[in-house]
Amino acid sequence: MEMKKVVEVCKRRGIIYPTAEIYGSMSGFWDYGPVGTRIKKNIEYYWREFFLDSGDHIVEIDGSVVLPESVFEASGHLGSFVDPIAQCKKCKSIHRADHLIEEKTKKFVEGKTTDELTRTIRDEKITCPKCGSALDDVRMFNLMLKTEVSAAGGQAAYLRPETAQNIFTSFKRVFLSSRGKLPFGIAQLGHSFRNEISPRHFVIRVREFNQFEIEMFIDPDNADDCPGFDAVAKTKLNFFTQDAQHKKTGKPTSVTAANALKKKLIPNKWLAYFMAKEMQFYQGLGIPAASLRHRHMLPEETPHYSKGNFDMEIEFDFGWKETVGNAYRGDYDLQKHMKHSRTDMSVVVDGKKVVPHVVEPSFGLERTFAGMLLHTFREDKKRGWDWFAFPPRVAPYTIAVLPLMKKQKLPEKAKETIGQLKQVKYDVFYDETGSIGKRYARMDEIGVPYCATVDYQTLKDDTVTLRDRDTTKQVRVQTKDLCSVLWKLVNGTAKFEKVGKPV
Amino acid sequence: MEMKKVVEVCKRRGIIYPTAEIYGSMSGFWDYGPVGTRIKKNIEYYWREFFLDSGDHIVEIDGSVVLPESVFEASGHLGSFVDPIAQCKKCKSIHRADHLIEEKTKKFVEGKTTDELTRTIRDEKITCPKCGSALDDVRMFNLMLKTEVSAAGGQAAYLRPETAQNIFTSFKRVFLSSRGKLPFGIAQLGHSFRNEISPRHFVIRVREFNQFEIEMFIDPDNADDCPGFDAVAKTKLNFFTQDAQHKKTGKPTSVTAANALKKKLIPNKWLAYFMAKEMQFYQGLGIPAASLRHRHMLPEETPHYSKGNFDMEIEFDFGWKETVGNAYRGDYDLQKHMKHSRTDMSVVVDGKKVVPHVVEPSFGLERTFAGMLLHTFREDKKRGWDWFAFPPRVAPYTIAVLPLMKKQKLPEKAKETIGQLKQVKYDVFYDETGSIGKRYARMDEIGVPYCATVDYQTLKDDTVTLRDRDTTKQVRVQTKDLCSVLWKLVNGTAKFEKVGKPV
Repeated sequence: MEMKKVVEVCKRRGIIYPTAEIYGSMSGFWDYGPVGTRIKKNIEYYWREFFLDSGDHIVEIDGSVVLPESVFEASGHLGSFVDPIAQCKKCKSIHRADHLIEEKTKKFVEGKTTDELTRTIRDEKITCPKCGSALDDVRMFNLMLKTEVSAAGGQAAYLRPETAQNIFTSFKRVFLSSRGKLPFGIAQLGHSFRNEISPRHFVIRVREFNQFEIEMFIDPDNADDCPGFDAVAKTKLNFFTQDAQHKKTGKPTSVTAANALKKKLIPNKWLAYFMAKEMQFYQGLGIPAASLRHRHMLPEETPHYSKGNFDMEIEFDFGWKETVGNAYRGDYDLQKHMKHSRTDMSVVVDGKKVVPHVVEPSFGLERTFAGMLLHTFREDKKRGWDWFAFPPRVAPYTIAVLPLMKKQKLPEKAKETIGQLKQVKYDVFYDETGSIGKRYARMDEIGVPYCATVDYQTLKDDTVTLRDRDTTKQVRVQTKDLCSVLWKLVNGTAKFEKVGKPV
Repeated sequence: MEMKKVVEVCKRRGIIYPTAEIYGSMSGFWDYGPVGTRIKKNIEYYWREFFLDSGDHIVEIDGSVVLPESVFEASGHLGSFVDPIAQCKKCKSIHRADHLIEEKTKKFVEGKTTDELTRTIRDEKITCPKCGSALDDVRMFNLMLKTEVSAAGGQAAYLRPETAQNIFTSFKRVFLSSRGKLPFGIAQLGHSFRNEISPRHFVIRVREFNQFEIEMFIDPDNADDCPGFDAVAKTKLNFFTQDAQHKKTGKPTSVTAANALKKKLIPNKWLAYFMAKEMQFYQGLGIPAASLRHRHMLPEETPHYSKGNFDMEIEFDFGWKETVGNAYRGDYDLQKHMKHSRTDMSVVVDGKKVVPHVVEPSFGLERTFAGMLLHTFREDKKRGWDWFAFPPRVAPYTIAVLPLMKKQKLPEKAKETIGQLKQVKYDVFYDETGSIGKRYARMDEIGVPYCATVDYQTLKDDTVTLRDRDTTKQVRVQTKDLCSVLWKLVNGTAKFEKVGKPV
């Protein structure tokens, strides 16, 4: 399980590669190639279906990436969206002070002041990782990318560091135009930007990325009104308590969402609901439960206004990494914007005015993607090629249709089959070049779960050979049944061996 | 047909509204609300299906929005992506010099030098539109939004002004990883940014917007290799020749794509192909052919390297506006990047090295959206409310399911029906509050084409009332047939009156 290999494969197969690499690139920026774009879109569809179409009354908006300074004055980002940095006195390179310390001492220092960090650097004799010289005092650096709008000059604006601010600023308009009732969710999928000091680990720490965020607005007097909870109550969480984190050999505990709530490990039903759904979602992407955990953030990592922060982390080869941030933010954000914009954001519930509280799950798409890539990558000496075990719903293509030869109307027959499949909106790949073995290999390499081969027998009895990526098993299926067979396989309602005659 | 009314409706119904409006907004930035986000996504799906899934071997990529300066040094944007501006000597407000002149004199001045523009302003006695004072000399202003990346400082980067540059810089990698053969297309849908001097006309002239761009890479020695052309050859274009533009009463001519090519009105088959498809696409969005035209750009509007530029324009209430730019760019872009990056971008065709030529259709999503809003808006005194005649495929919901009353299991029955429809991936809206008339009105107002009402008769014979938005006609349909009936209606293969018993 090595990310380095996966990164190489991603570049070669057009999944993800550095932005503008012909110019040596700018670190922290990556482009999705043709295969990666398809997978990314499919993850988005799957996320929408799983989190937005589930009857929770969550609507989706799509707002500007560039936002005026006033928004970030109010949100607090202008003042406190900062990272501690330490510059080398000699080579002038810049480093994340907290990361340097964590690497050297294995101590967790998030939330420490610049003075405390400087002292630790001195005490632990930490030097510049590039040239070994002494580091300057630690200072804070704002992570927002700044720009200026208008030709007259001077109108400061920022590339949003999170999608949430479009949601908070437009909450009232969206709520009213949707004829909303609490609980009411607003989601956004889109770009965010952070001027990371040291981008690294492939797309894990980058400067331009995509987020899926939901702000669930709830009535604080009725915070447990979460109708969907019962359906996920028995879902098992790997819950990493604050106590367990303080022990050297501390491990997450397996606990159902219902029990975590009952034992007050999680302070709010909506939080527990989203955390349970996250476990389901990420397992649906092919990441084993053992490589997923919810970590209760330590007090020093938690903002003062928070009523509870829980990170869903994925295990990577270099350690566990936050992929979803879950937070019960109270009415902090709406109150801030009410004050700064002098706009009333309260809504009326049974005749009383309420400033809603907010429960927020915030997903990082790139980390989600990278987690799936790593956990579905299969090095396979027996086959002679590496492949990806992407779940069918997010694979770049659901099926490849391959005519055995470029003659005797096999291509025409294959294209006819494709026409049928496309009617039902399947993503189909067509390939007629190279040996059939090579073509299977190419499909395995980009994680296409099924291949249908059109051969001479097809012309006789209208059947095709259907091949399963994971087992390389083959069955013979009637062409006319291909759509419904595929439907069952993608939705997991039939076993591969049962959908046709073994070959 | 007034955009002003449409803009008001868009704000009220959560379609499009100004970004961060509680802070007074920054002009040129707009957010999509819940209804607008759905329509936007559907336009994207429709575009993809229409332009990318048509067998032309066009792949899609999804690249970074922030690009390093080196990219724009090479592309020429750093030097020449400029607009002429004139600042008021007194109130210091800034204005687009060319627009001021065009408004005052009705003369077209794109491509003129700053000296020529300054002279015209003096000759025509044009003053500041804000305060009436004299204007300063015209100067050029770069339209790219700039930012700085890296904490050490000094790494200039820009928000891309077009999506095309990700395509050119990664051409070779995408081509090779896709095992490409010419003609080979690369498309991208995504954000672009331009620091417009005077944003205006709703989302027509904005600072943050979305583009759909295709770069079709072709072999210049085999430029007419466009397999899809025959299928669109008879499509009628409204072609506005350079000659006709020079005449005061000049008008576009109706000509088929095949004839436009034969008469050499269009210099390349791929250009003619895309132009024909654009006519089909925009009519598919509900914009009448008479409000669409292709304007052959005048020599002074055309870059020196271009082998032909044709703008598809939509008629708005304030005039015709470019919505798609079509250009035969030769090998200009690849040659520039080859030179600046010292990377070979040539590909091998039948043993010879070729730097592909490029045909580029570049779509503006916001102008597409605005054109559709304007042309499908229906002021309706008879009904008592305004509505949108959105084509079903891009409507925010395909159908609304409405239980007549909130009792006697009507809501349960309605939700059962929704379950069926969702299996076939229909977007379904559920509404149980208010009189049925009010609910029809609400659906009309956001352009939902069909409503199915579940009433007492449904409980007896399992039929629902299906209502057609455009005619308000109603028919009675078996619940079990609803999916297939809807399929026929959306795809235009059945008339509404024929799909059930008249009510």
